[in-house]
Amino acid sequence: MANKNAFYAQSGGVTSVINASACGVIEACRNHSDKIGVLYAGQNGIIGALQENLINTSLESDQSIAALRHIPGGAFGSCRYKMQDIADNDSEYQRLIDVFKAHNIGYFFYNGGGDSADTCLKVSQISEQMGYPIQAIHIPKTIDNDLPLTDCSPGFGSVAKYVAVSAKEASLDIASMSGSSTKVFILEVMGRHAGWIAASGGLATQVQGEPPHIILFPEISFEREAFIAKVKKTVEKCGYCVVVASEGTTYADGGLLSGSLSEDAFGHKQLGGVAPALCSMIKNSLGYKYHYAVADYLQRSARHIASKTDVAQAYAVGRAAVEKALEGKNAIMVSIQRGSGSVYSWSLGEAPLESVANQEKKMPRSFISEDGFGITQQARDYLLPLIAGEDYPPYKNGMPYYPCLKNKLVAKRCKQWTLC
Amino acid sequence: MANKNAFYAQSGGVTSVINASACGVIEACRNHSDKIGVLYAGQNGIIGALQENLINTSLESDQSIAALRHIPGGAFGSCRYKMQDIADNDSEYQRLIDVFKAHNIGYFFYNGGGDSADTCLKVSQISEQMGYPIQAIHIPKTIDNDLPLTDCSPGFGSVAKYVAVSAKEASLDIASMSGSSTKVFILEVMGRHAGWIAASGGLATQVQGEPPHIILFPEISFEREAFIAKVKKTVEKCGYCVVVASEGTTYADGGLLSGSLSEDAFGHKQLGGVAPALCSMIKNSLGYKYHYAVADYLQRSARHIASKTDVAQAYAVGRAAVEKALEGKNAIMVSIQRGSGSVYSWSLGEAPLESVANQEKKMPRSFISEDGFGITQQARDYLLPLIAGEDYPPYKNGMPYYPCLKNKLVAKRCKQWTLC
Repeated sequence: MANKNAFYAQSGGVTSVINASACGVIEACRNHSDKIGVLYAGQNGIIGALQENLINTSLESDQSIAALRHIPGGAFGSCRYKMQDIADNDSEYQRLIDVFKAHNIGYFFYNGGGDSADTCLKVSQISEQMGYPIQAIHIPKTIDNDLPLTDCSPGFGSVAKYVAVSAKEASLDIASMSGSSTKVFILEVMGRHAGWIAASGGLATQVQGEPPHIILFPEISFEREAFIAKVKKTVEKCGYCVVVASEGTTYADGGLLSGSLSEDAFGHKQLGGVAPALCSMIKNSLGYKYHYAVADYLQRSARHIASKTDVAQAYAVGRAAVEKALEGKNAIMVSIQRGSGSVYSWSLGEAPLESVANQEKKMPRSFISEDGFGITQQARDYLLPLIAGEDYPPYKNGMPYYPCLKNKLVAKRCKQWTLC
Repeated sequence: MANKNAFYAQSGGVTSVINASACGVIEACRNHSDKIGVLYAGQNGIIGALQENLINTSLESDQSIAALRHIPGGAFGSCRYKMQDIADNDSEYQRLIDVFKAHNIGYFFYNGGGDSADTCLKVSQISEQMGYPIQAIHIPKTIDNDLPLTDCSPGFGSVAKYVAVSAKEASLDIASMSGSSTKVFILEVMGRHAGWIAASGGLATQVQGEPPHIILFPEISFEREAFIAKVKKTVEKCGYCVVVASEGTTYADGGLLSGSLSEDAFGHKQLGGVAPALCSMIKNSLGYKYHYAVADYLQRSARHIASKTDVAQAYAVGRAAVEKALEGKNAIMVSIQRGSGSVYSWSLGEAPLESVANQEKKMPRSFISEDGFGITQQARDYLLPLIAGEDYPPYKNGMPYYPCLKNKLVAKRCKQWTLC
């Protein structure tokens, strides 16, 4: 019987290094062509499997696959799609089995965060509960760094570097303008309900007292009076104030800052921005001139300033997923383990998917300074190695060289299927 | 009699390469130590001269000055401060003469945009109208690229590169998410009333049809219906739509999309908030899921992704200002001239300040596509050489190395003076 084929898909919000993981998976599969047949990539994540939109990665040259290591976005398309529990509705799983069977797929590699780990876990259960033999391995990926049982998540280190560098650069800008102009600069960053990305803004402080002066974490309840007082004190002392604010910053009652105003400072209907909400408070309470930036997708696609450590880890977890599948593993996530020495080192391990799925690892309180507005040395020690090293993409004519794959779909063998 | 000393100051919004110009000025002065005495830098621009806050640059090591080439922000502080006309009120000019006399200053180098050129012109008039001998040379700087009589303005090329790279990277992100999630991404960029920065987003399009699909220029009146129709058509055809929007986008009646909050010292309105305004329209009219980024200060401080061409030009105009002063020039701006060959080349020239001050060079209509939503080949040919080459700063521990100068003030010799 022919070797089993493999399926790989990208899931959830993409990162600047998720394609480095894809590169690791594909290169490892090619290295094990004696054991693994064709690697199919799902077009737009698990939806590609459900709709039998399978990309034949064997049609891509080794050179094109190697280039994935430095291309941001999701080369095969990603998705936000939550599968139901097998117990509630097994029709989607029956469909997956039909597609997997039709294409002789025995390995399932899923590249995503906590929600995607849930999908991967459910797929792994096909084996036991529905009798179709498949090994499902989860490849960690999330800029939010909120996956449990891994020291960090690929994707995070590069966002952390982008945010730290951007906060540093913008701080130098406002420092030179504050004498006669802008007094407050706010950088809004992602991270959902975990403050890891906001915390990384703290790495811009290289000498004590340097900006950012205030970091707002989802883990710390926002108190308007305390915030305004801190901004005022900082401007009076330093001449200006730099704030890094997590999009998930919330009041003690759980209400999001971003949803708390009906209108922003410009009179526009508020669209869910923490930075404009904060600016509005500052303008109203203190009257300072402000500027704000919303990094949004720029932060998670900024492959041009990726962390070398992050790229290496993203690639390695992809390769390891294939190795672990060949060792017969199922329902696990590849994890990153930090060495115990004083010099940073890392190795790969694994974690059971049922302990990973749908969990959020938040910042420990010990990583946040007592007043709730900064990071501690412990946080700094954790974060700094993750942004280490530069890994520049090649450039052509002033622009990074981000070529596209052919992404040719294989002929369908199953009947058409419509998403629920 | 001792050689005349020189004064240098940074003015207006800073850029990621204004310190490269400072580096050029200081190194050229050091090379001509037989003709020029000490170079003093104004703390916070012209305000530093008025308040006699003069930084003694001779206390900085050659190494520290060389490092300025790769440090963003304004190393000596900048300002937004408009001097009155000599005819209306000559007290500020009398004060400048007092300070210049007290410190034997005969050369005035001012590094800024159109408003700063006005200041530089006024200072140059001290010579003729008030009898104090000074040579005032303007060193061009503005990310807005709106200075006349120069092919481009130092600072612009690096912002253009940042915006082009960011638009490219974010486009790869949304392209991979659009199947099941976000359909529209809007990147709001600076540029005030000129569309040069927005236009540079068009360089992300390397193959026809690639994003960004829509660019909004201040030069083209915004029409809501046409915009919404174009977004709809693009999403239906491509699956998603990327928009690069200038902060200065306006309706036909001159009303800003963003509204405006406050004015700076020059009477310019602080712009911003175009992206949320556009998202609101899209949400209301089409219901698409959207994301937006506001690059704000990040774009103009992003030294980590500076254009090598821009850095070289910024340095060169600084050096040339000193050379031109030594040639006896006054009331001129150093300009950049583009060679006529098919391969990009540039050289330095000069332009009379009275033709530069308070002028805005907007995008020619021939640079904007017929439908008003994109750039032409002519624009592409103009823009592309300006983002050519990378000029990475050195890194230490994962962060760019941006050391601070000592910035030691010289002892005051004049009486205290309060700004009007």
